Amino acid sequence: MSLRVTFLGTSGAVPTTGRNTSALAVRREGDAFLWDCGEGTQRQMMRFGTGFDVEGIFVTHAHGDHTLGLPGLLQTLDFNERERGLTIHVPGGTRRQIRSVVDAGGTNPSFPVRIDEVTDGSVAHRGDDYEIRAFETDHDARSVGYALVEDDRKGRFDRQKAEEELGIPPGPAYSRLHEGESVELDDGRVIHPEQVVGDPRPGRAVVYTGDTRPTDRTVAIAEGADLLVHDATFADDLAERARQTAHATAREAGDVASRAEAVRLALMHVSTRYAGDVSAHEREAAEAFDGEAFVPDDGRVVEVPFPDA
Amino acid sequence: MSLRVTFLGTSGAVPTTGRNTSALAVRREGDAFLWDCGEGTQRQMMRFGTGFDVEGIFVTHAHGDHTLGLPGLLQTLDFNERERGLTIHVPGGTRRQIRSVVDAGGTNPSFPVRIDEVTDGSVAHRGDDYEIRAFETDHDARSVGYALVEDDRKGRFDRQKAEEELGIPPGPAYSRLHEGESVELDDGRVIHPEQVVGDPRPGRAVVYTGDTRPTDRTVAIAEGADLLVHDATFADDLAERARQTAHATAREAGDVASRAEAVRLALMHVSTRYAGDVSAHEREAAEAFDGEAFVPDDGRVVEVPFPDA
Repeated sequence: MSLRVTFLGTSGAVPTTGRNTSALAVRREGDAFLWDCGEGTQRQMMRFGTGFDVEGIFVTHAHGDHTLGLPGLLQTLDFNERERGLTIHVPGGTRRQIRSVVDAGGTNPSFPVRIDEVTDGSVAHRGDDYEIRAFETDHDARSVGYALVEDDRKGRFDRQKAEEELGIPPGPAYSRLHEGESVELDDGRVIHPEQVVGDPRPGRAVVYTGDTRPTDRTVAIAEGADLLVHDATFADDLAERARQTAHATAREAGDVASRAEAVRLALMHVSTRYAGDVSAHEREAAEAFDGEAFVPDDGRVVEVPFPDA
Repeated sequence: MSLRVTFLGTSGAVPTTGRNTSALAVRREGDAFLWDCGEGTQRQMMRFGTGFDVEGIFVTHAHGDHTLGLPGLLQTLDFNERERGLTIHVPGGTRRQIRSVVDAGGTNPSFPVRIDEVTDGSVAHRGDDYEIRAFETDHDARSVGYALVEDDRKGRFDRQKAEEELGIPPGPAYSRLHEGESVELDDGRVIHPEQVVGDPRPGRAVVYTGDTRPTDRTVAIAEGADLLVHDATFADDLAERARQTAHATAREAGDVASRAEAVRLALMHVSTRYAGDVSAHEREAAEAFDGEAFVPDDGRVVEVPFPDA
């Protein structure tokens, strides 16, 4: 069950030749999502081959560097003869703003486009065995972050114990036990699942903050996350400016990741002033966080493994 | 007096990895203009080094692939602390549409942004010795094209005749004559400018149609143009589709260039279906037009020389 994040745009509000404005492509097995959609995102999707079969778009807030790619992308989906409806998830109170961005292209897609508002705790999307939840963030606009959280997986099936210790003949009984059913064997014994199946194992979680100050809410939602993608617009040299503009520094992002005991931390939304050199970001985040911290380039693909893989 | 066109985006409505949506950077000596501004234009400007010191933006019509770069560009100009006002010239009846595109970014630039409507024959911009005129085109939206037309230049000063034949002593009299004044020499003779100055020589002209069917109006305005940039969305194989969608074929663009006796023809707005191979465009245009016809790549710079240079 693959889970992959492609960094489509990693710049701050102003793009550079190397970094486009904010967007992430998130693909879990066959389901593809776009998290934020800055100007030029459709071309980044082409360049990095993420595919256009998106199930839904999740917008963290209505600032242009996170939304201005929407109308062009919708126009291209329309040219590609998309028929399936598309839902754009947006923070509560921004539907009208986002509608005007969507309509700015002057064309009306022939597939249905729905704009749904989410608030802290909303399940924006429910998949077969995962969901995408919104959580509150702290920016100078109505804003949320998104977390893709997988359901717990079944515990491991102890085949050796089943076969050798309990003498259960291999066959359909194994999968019934693994699914949680008790099974009566031909010799009359009743075997219960907990005899051969371990505790449920946690699924994976990918958390994306969008633009935000560090918050306890992010620490809570990112607890044990396999990948935390956090605002890191500035380095320590501009910590005061981070506060003034409701962004975070790389060190603050590292501190959130550390408190959440996340596995990996991607530093996003890097200001143009660090275009040539993100070493301060990586160093300062590493001082606050023991896990892997990195500033992804545009096009970087992160495959998220199961923690026990 | 340099005159330079940089092709920032040469794709049709849908960009490709190689071609961005429509935009041209036009720079005449120190004066820089943007003609159309598709999504992602600001990054093309960075990539191709055209500079952000634009005097004005000229929009051919309100479709997204010609306008969606406006809000992001304005936001970046604002981040760059632009103070000077900026006028966006748009076809009559589209001011409100363009205003909603400009506002889609959700930020309000701190420099004044003015949106001016133009119609056929409007002088959208007057420079020291050139102007930018709007002309009617024929698309499925309110649309205009733009022509940068230089004033006639002074005729050539025939220095040999002045010095050797008429015996005028070199000095200030030469420039006075060249400026059109008659001059009385020390020996009492009066020399008139037409004795030593040739006929006024035409300036240069660059004409950009935006999206359009071929029209007589374009032929008229492009008469003798040094560079005609014409819609060539399709090749002959889709001539019927060009009619249906109010675009032109490469051959039709060639025919316009031929009738106008233009010097060079750039074929723009090429549909994605020709992304891999524009040879049909170039061949068919060349069959209709004896001058130089080419499909520019994004980033191509064309320096426009004086015809008699």
